[in-house]
Amino acid sequence: MSVTDELLANNAAYAETFDGPLPLPPSRRLAVVACMDARLNVYAILGLKEGEAHVIRNAGGVVTSDEIRSLAISQRLLGTREIILIHHTDCGMLTFTDDGFKDAVRKDTGIRPPWAAEAFSDLDDDVRQSIARIKADPFVPHKDAIRGFVFDVATGKLNETV
Amino acid sequence: MSVTDELLANNAAYAETFDGPLPLPPSRRLAVVACMDARLNVYAILGLKEGEAHVIRNAGGVVTSDEIRSLAISQRLLGTREIILIHHTDCGMLTFTDDGFKDAVRKDTGIRPPWAAEAFSDLDDDVRQSIARIKADPFVPHKDAIRGFVFDVATGKLNETV
Repeated sequence: MSVTDELLANNAAYAETFDGPLPLPPSRRLAVVACMDARLNVYAILGLKEGEAHVIRNAGGVVTSDEIRSLAISQRLLGTREIILIHHTDCGMLTFTDDGFKDAVRKDTGIRPPWAAEAFSDLDDDVRQSIARIKADPFVPHKDAIRGFVFDVATGKLNETV
Repeated sequence: MSVTDELLANNAAYAETFDGPLPLPPSRRLAVVACMDARLNVYAILGLKEGEAHVIRNAGGVVTSDEIRSLAISQRLLGTREIILIHHTDCGMLTFTDDGFKDAVRKDTGIRPPWAAEAFSDLDDDVRQSIARIKADPFVPHKDAIRGFVFDVATGKLNETV
């Protein structure tokens, strides 16, 4: 039995007590951009309920053109206005460099990835860069309420980047 | 008081009962790619616990180069082997076209986005395309266990795309 099959059994239990369809636009008018890290249960960390916020996640919680696409759709078509960015301690992105990762992939596949790996060496500094990338972008219209945090995987706390 | 401030109060409560740091690699060796939709509480839908799976999310739950980057890092550096893709009923991506969205952005900003909006008109068909994009990519090494689903926002059930 695969992990996927086990999780489908969990889904059957979830559906048994599921409470009807909610509206499409996020009721809190918020979009969260967070790392894909398995320890970040974003709904639990922020006390979010279903239907309240868009949740965008990727390796590092960084902002590339795909996060800009998601944020532009979130704000322009579905009415969100605030953005929360979440990086976290003990992040995998701190353990390698773009060149090192891309050299290893080339050695394995014969092809160097054309995309940046987006590794970083300082969490708060990369949160600041992620905010700067959104602020510099012409397609995300609402930039007055963007705040960035580092989640501490040891304590469960969000510490704001200043 | 902003929504962000309210959620930070929730985080303080979360941290009070938080139970220590878990290991970095996902214990279930799974990566999930899902839509950013607010109604998709991925941990709850799949019965995932903290530390078990990478969760990658974007507008539509589509696969672009940034999801390939995240999946490549997930499999190559952090040992995941299975992939679950989740689209969902009543998705915002069904309500517009790439051209329509990009024309509207150009009208507002003077600039047509250089990225695809990734709108789609058929959920199962786009799940299949997302799987095909992963299978066609040279940088994601493990492709034997990829399954795709449409989450029903009315019933809470995952229905597998075949």
